[in-house]
Amino acid sequence: MPKYGAIEAGGTKFMVAVGKDPLRLERVTRIATSDEPAETIGAVVEYFRGQGPLDALGIATFGPVDFATGRITTTPKLAWRNYPLKETLERALGVRAGFDTDVNAAALAEARLGAGRGAGDLVYFTVGTGIGGGAIAGGRLVHGMMHPEMGHLPVRRAAEEAPGFAGVCPYHGDCLEGMASGPALEARWGRRAELLPADHPAWRVEADYLAQACMAVACVLSPLVIVLGGGVMEQEHLIAMVRQRLEEQARGYFPLPRIERPALEHPGLSGALMLAMEAAR
Amino acid sequence: MPKYGAIEAGGTKFMVAVGKDPLRLERVTRIATSDEPAETIGAVVEYFRGQGPLDALGIATFGPVDFATGRITTTPKLAWRNYPLKETLERALGVRAGFDTDVNAAALAEARLGAGRGAGDLVYFTVGTGIGGGAIAGGRLVHGMMHPEMGHLPVRRAAEEAPGFAGVCPYHGDCLEGMASGPALEARWGRRAELLPADHPAWRVEADYLAQACMAVACVLSPLVIVLGGGVMEQEHLIAMVRQRLEEQARGYFPLPRIERPALEHPGLSGALMLAMEAAR
Repeated sequence: MPKYGAIEAGGTKFMVAVGKDPLRLERVTRIATSDEPAETIGAVVEYFRGQGPLDALGIATFGPVDFATGRITTTPKLAWRNYPLKETLERALGVRAGFDTDVNAAALAEARLGAGRGAGDLVYFTVGTGIGGGAIAGGRLVHGMMHPEMGHLPVRRAAEEAPGFAGVCPYHGDCLEGMASGPALEARWGRRAELLPADHPAWRVEADYLAQACMAVACVLSPLVIVLGGGVMEQEHLIAMVRQRLEEQARGYFPLPRIERPALEHPGLSGALMLAMEAAR
Repeated sequence: MPKYGAIEAGGTKFMVAVGKDPLRLERVTRIATSDEPAETIGAVVEYFRGQGPLDALGIATFGPVDFATGRITTTPKLAWRNYPLKETLERALGVRAGFDTDVNAAALAEARLGAGRGAGDLVYFTVGTGIGGGAIAGGRLVHGMMHPEMGHLPVRRAAEEAPGFAGVCPYHGDCLEGMASGPALEARWGRRAELLPADHPAWRVEADYLAQACMAVACVLSPLVIVLGGGVMEQEHLIAMVRQRLEEQARGYFPLPRIERPALEHPGLSGALMLAMEAAR
């Protein structure tokens, strides 16, 4: 039976695993992301060499990404800028690699095997240090000319927002990521998200922005399911608040997508294994 | 050589045509939309019976639409609600019919043959009595669980907007359609769009909303081209203003889609003929 390697490449950590089945990831391991790509990739290659021969590799990465060349492009991590991630790993490990964004991989896994099981149309948002979104439309991943950048959706200021808060996105200030990412919560309320109690007004504001993001993707893609993952969504009370705000915003105009937490433990990594399986075909 | 029939069904008029080639529509004819579907459809059937035998029909219609049953659903035109448009026409004319939204048909035609010629990823907006959007992603029409409803995207109030203007959307008030459709312009400025001079402040406000819509779909779908059609876009100065506002809003974060006027004379009708060609296969 073929064996695949999976990588979820993030700005803080690389998660790696091997396996035959995206629902049964084996030897899941965390490798810290160094400022020097050579150091991180060296550790990743060493990990996979210790797992025996692989049939293919799947790479789900932070972005922005250039699919034509398999590179991360304009990341603020300077040494990673234009780093040939796909090519370097393919050469070092002697296998073909599937390559996509972390959120597209997560969308793929959640659509086929997770919260959207069987849904041909699904959007996956990660809400953490940044905000990103991936999408499946008609059963296939959405790429477009580059790839979705849903974190930079324009949002309206929530009614309870502080008038002086300008948002933290270095490009847009008060876009979705600028107002609703983990760093935005910390900048706005002076405490890290996980230290804000469940009844703190911060969560009403946060739910408003995330509901706006859900409304926007519902208007553009009409997905059956929207999955909200990432560190900020680990606040268990938050998802019900997003659902309620979305209903208030949509006002019964159209059937709303189901808003769900990820069903998989590692959606991005399971998706990476699925990318490997497709690359092997 | 096969011959097809094309229908673009709107709330004001049905445009009908026949032809072998979506770039060469023949006998383009306008039939007023009556409050009584039977009257309109009777005239449409009579038109096609006069054109000789058809190999297939393509129907591009206003919505919302239920693809499973080929019906228009919750339109404010009560007698058209749940009218079995596809089935009635297929039976009366004895042909198979392709069926999609007017804006999806227009997106298809502009992506393959028009302003986006060869673009696998394109969004088509119509800005007129209402606002609607259709999309091609990875070369295929986007449907989702229902279909896109891009007219109801949330927008921020433009800086020059009147504070008291609540918008005209009966569901959301100040969504995209509520702020930027033809009726919104008329309600806001007291004159029909075509009577507002090119240097009127209305156009800066209008361009702001349309740029926000372009920004939202760029974030979600990353299209190569966005085509802006419909009556309001016949103001020739407007498209350059939208391009400029979009650049200001995007702030260099990602490569922007090209913003274009339709290249085809009847994008929806040409798209309907393409739907007929697909139905015949």
